[in-house]
Amino acid sequence: MRGAVIHAPGDIRFETLDDAKILKRTDAVIRTAVTCVCGSDLWPYRGAEPTEQAHPMGHEYVGFVEEVGSEVTSVRPGQFVVGSFATSDNTCANCRNGFQSNCLNREFMSTCQAEYVRIPNAEGTLVATDDIPDEALWPGLLAVSDVMGTGWWAAEAAEVRPGSTAVVVGDGAVGLCAVIAAKEMGAERIIAMSRHASRQKLALEFGATDIVTERGDEGIARIKEMTGGIGADSVLECVGTAQAMRQALHSARPGGSVGFVGVPHEVAVDGQELFFSHVGLRGGPAPVRRYLPDLIDRVLTRRIEPGKVFDLTLPLEQVAEGYQAMDERRAIKTLLKP
Amino acid sequence: MRGAVIHAPGDIRFETLDDAKILKRTDAVIRTAVTCVCGSDLWPYRGAEPTEQAHPMGHEYVGFVEEVGSEVTSVRPGQFVVGSFATSDNTCANCRNGFQSNCLNREFMSTCQAEYVRIPNAEGTLVATDDIPDEALWPGLLAVSDVMGTGWWAAEAAEVRPGSTAVVVGDGAVGLCAVIAAKEMGAERIIAMSRHASRQKLALEFGATDIVTERGDEGIARIKEMTGGIGADSVLECVGTAQAMRQALHSARPGGSVGFVGVPHEVAVDGQELFFSHVGLRGGPAPVRRYLPDLIDRVLTRRIEPGKVFDLTLPLEQVAEGYQAMDERRAIKTLLKP
Repeated sequence: MRGAVIHAPGDIRFETLDDAKILKRTDAVIRTAVTCVCGSDLWPYRGAEPTEQAHPMGHEYVGFVEEVGSEVTSVRPGQFVVGSFATSDNTCANCRNGFQSNCLNREFMSTCQAEYVRIPNAEGTLVATDDIPDEALWPGLLAVSDVMGTGWWAAEAAEVRPGSTAVVVGDGAVGLCAVIAAKEMGAERIIAMSRHASRQKLALEFGATDIVTERGDEGIARIKEMTGGIGADSVLECVGTAQAMRQALHSARPGGSVGFVGVPHEVAVDGQELFFSHVGLRGGPAPVRRYLPDLIDRVLTRRIEPGKVFDLTLPLEQVAEGYQAMDERRAIKTLLKP
Repeated sequence: MRGAVIHAPGDIRFETLDDAKILKRTDAVIRTAVTCVCGSDLWPYRGAEPTEQAHPMGHEYVGFVEEVGSEVTSVRPGQFVVGSFATSDNTCANCRNGFQSNCLNREFMSTCQAEYVRIPNAEGTLVATDDIPDEALWPGLLAVSDVMGTGWWAAEAAEVRPGSTAVVVGDGAVGLCAVIAAKEMGAERIIAMSRHASRQKLALEFGATDIVTERGDEGIARIKEMTGGIGADSVLECVGTAQAMRQALHSARPGGSVGFVGVPHEVAVDGQELFFSHVGLRGGPAPVRRYLPDLIDRVLTRRIEPGKVFDLTLPLEQVAEGYQAMDERRAIKTLLKP
């Protein structure tokens, strides 16, 4: 089979790899329907995370079950399945508490930009659809496996409530999906921070009521001005930089909440500053598995269309171009078709 | 009138001061019924916070209204009142959101270890009892003005739920009141971290089900061991040091919550560590005003007895000895009677 391998920053190659196969009785192997490039894939691509040795890439996937291990009974060959970027047994204490992305048997997916993928913990990770969905819905279901689930988690962690005001920091695919989530959870006002025309347009289409182009202290001042001098009830931080976290913490009102879902890079939070702000802070890898049944349903019924974050579609073999387009911000998110 | 003044670390004097009087139409002046020394008063007493010039001390009080400004209509002379260490107008956006301790007109109380006290924002700060309470209940009501309210906030911020497991870090008066709060909110298991026999005893009396004497990594390991390897649902951090915050963050389960109510001193939280823990973090000065009606009722009906945290009672004029006894850990908390 063939798939993407990173050799060094900026160096993604489409290569022949060992075939994906069952290694444990709890595994499944799927034939990839569609996969994609994630904003977080750009960290190693840009050298912001080290690449010590060449390795496969990708953690987002939907596909057809090819084969299952002997302990997998919840899905069967031929079914169309959606999973999470973090696998889970869905039975341990953390899973039962709703934090499947902190499963005691968690394995992060990392080989999904390929024709076939081995899924560990298949029983507790994969959710099959009743029928094979219309191909037009595949991008939306693919988004559910990571960016839409992560946007949902941002809204949950930021405690978005009906009638509230939410600010979304970050206009990447996760930030845009966070707008969808805030809208679905009933936020009355959704302020998207973005300075890119195509992303602003999509944010508005997804339910944003306002766009703020300012950043840093000016961005904070603008949010305060728009919220009666107080700040927003909920802030969804979808970037992961120190600047974005600062923007988020200072945009929330006293007693408001920040949900942070971008993996933090060199972010430290001052205890005393957080204390006097009364702002609640919660983040982490999204517990996508918990949301799968609900989000799959919202996509299949066309209630939400997170597949629209894919504004570039390429054959899987052109994966390198997919990275480059996102790196150069020519694309929000690249869909890859095997 | 007379009251306590700090001149330098370790140097508290009982002196003649200018009489408390109405300075604004929104003020009241109360005659102190009882007041006390707070754990946070020990920061300047120990030199951990600078004392640049001599100033009065104290922020906890219950008393009798002596006089009110022309705009104060909710309380009248002769009434017994309980307030908060943070004054509030109780009408601004932050107050309406339930964060009266972040009131746009907030003033922190700082002159309460005295015979009379000026209360700014009296209308939105003071709550009068229906009758003059039995003197035996004054210590409990005094506790409500700060430590009991702060313990309650710790439990709320740590999202204590019926049936949950709560850990209380810190066995000072706030930590002990946090045990009461966790119990009242229905926590099934309450683990108090303490290595002082008298405080352990009071924690058990207040509802703690377990005592852990270990600290640091051993303390964390012990909590994990007691909670199926996962950690606690809620951790109530009632100290404010970097060590206590570390203990708290590592004692919470994935997806659990830490409420931190000790003013943080040199505490920084690593973004990536918080991220992968899935732990929620919220703190700040307690919104005591919001809790006053409920907590006053619980004290007056003798449902809770937070006044038991006072294990030393002195005449107000011996305030210096009150500080020293707490500094040397001979007392948990000193009650002062004018």
